[in-house]
Amino acid sequence: MINYPTKKRIKPIINKTKNSVKNRGMRFEKLIDEANRFYLDRDIAVIHKKPVPIQIVKVHYPKRALARIDEAYYKTPSTTDYNGIYQQHYIDFDVKETSAKTSFPLKNIHTHQIAHLKRVHRHGGVAFLLIHLKHPDETYLLGFEALQNFLKRAEKGRKSIRFLELRKVGYSIKEGFQPRIDYLKAVSAYIKDKTT
Amino acid sequence: MINYPTKKRIKPIINKTKNSVKNRGMRFEKLIDEANRFYLDRDIAVIHKKPVPIQIVKVHYPKRALARIDEAYYKTPSTTDYNGIYQQHYIDFDVKETSAKTSFPLKNIHTHQIAHLKRVHRHGGVAFLLIHLKHPDETYLLGFEALQNFLKRAEKGRKSIRFLELRKVGYSIKEGFQPRIDYLKAVSAYIKDKTT
Repeated sequence: MINYPTKKRIKPIINKTKNSVKNRGMRFEKLIDEANRFYLDRDIAVIHKKPVPIQIVKVHYPKRALARIDEAYYKTPSTTDYNGIYQQHYIDFDVKETSAKTSFPLKNIHTHQIAHLKRVHRHGGVAFLLIHLKHPDETYLLGFEALQNFLKRAEKGRKSIRFLELRKVGYSIKEGFQPRIDYLKAVSAYIKDKTT
Repeated sequence: MINYPTKKRIKPIINKTKNSVKNRGMRFEKLIDEANRFYLDRDIAVIHKKPVPIQIVKVHYPKRALARIDEAYYKTPSTTDYNGIYQQHYIDFDVKETSAKTSFPLKNIHTHQIAHLKRVHRHGGVAFLLIHLKHPDETYLLGFEALQNFLKRAEKGRKSIRFLELRKVGYSIKEGFQPRIDYLKAVSAYIKDKTT
């Protein structure tokens, strides 16, 4: 077995009074990590979450293999969080969660994420978002083409995607048993629609 | 322009007396990062280096966007360092450098890297190593199939790849002007050989 980074994660001690933006959507991300581990173990796909980019400033290095980082900062990522290979396709996506009640705000998607997904799409990769709506408790895959249409509309009009719209153009992902969020089914359907 | 992580890297302060394993091969890696930036800017490919996985233990969080990591450790990666998309292909590789004089020691390739490249290859991705030989100052792309043959031989015999062998089965990458290590030429040749 390889050393899978998410398995032995020690919970960081964070001094703060309210929930940080970083922690929103963590539960849903965990389900995606769980699915990826399942896909890897069953040899269905090779999809990993990228490590968070860290700017290391100071390292204490008493001897080899004992390095302790004493000062570091979070950096802005330049890509999405997940990528890999499935059925010979390059897969690239980000995971979003909203507690909004009727529409998904487009401001949840960062500029660098859009730019990256656009590039991937242009080079023939499979680019999408996995969106979890907390309140109706529904999950959708939103393909890049559909996302782009909503972004175009947002230039002059509505800056969000209505749940009703998401249900129409997204691929629904039902919660199951193992893995709980078996999102590759939706990816297969999306690839099929793209290529036929 | 997106925020490309390697651009504004502050050099970490490391207290140590001798060169760490981590820093060996840094110069060659920088040339690969430079090539990736070039490919990204010219829209030739979307290939990124993954951030180093860090185990964060303690974060000082006075207010949002001011988080300072006070204690963290390096983790063992579970994949290779580079992946992305080129000509619709999923690309996955690691970068190696040796100052040995006649052969490349296979112990330079870690078990998790071999396992990962093998998976990628099985799923139809383009998996390889970029090997820089410091002393003759030559660079080669070694495709996964050829690497696997050397690994098989190593089970009973020689645990290294002779430079003479590498010159025969590898794809030579000559140092040029912009980018200095234009490795995608070798990737194209490798893909062509795989698919014809």
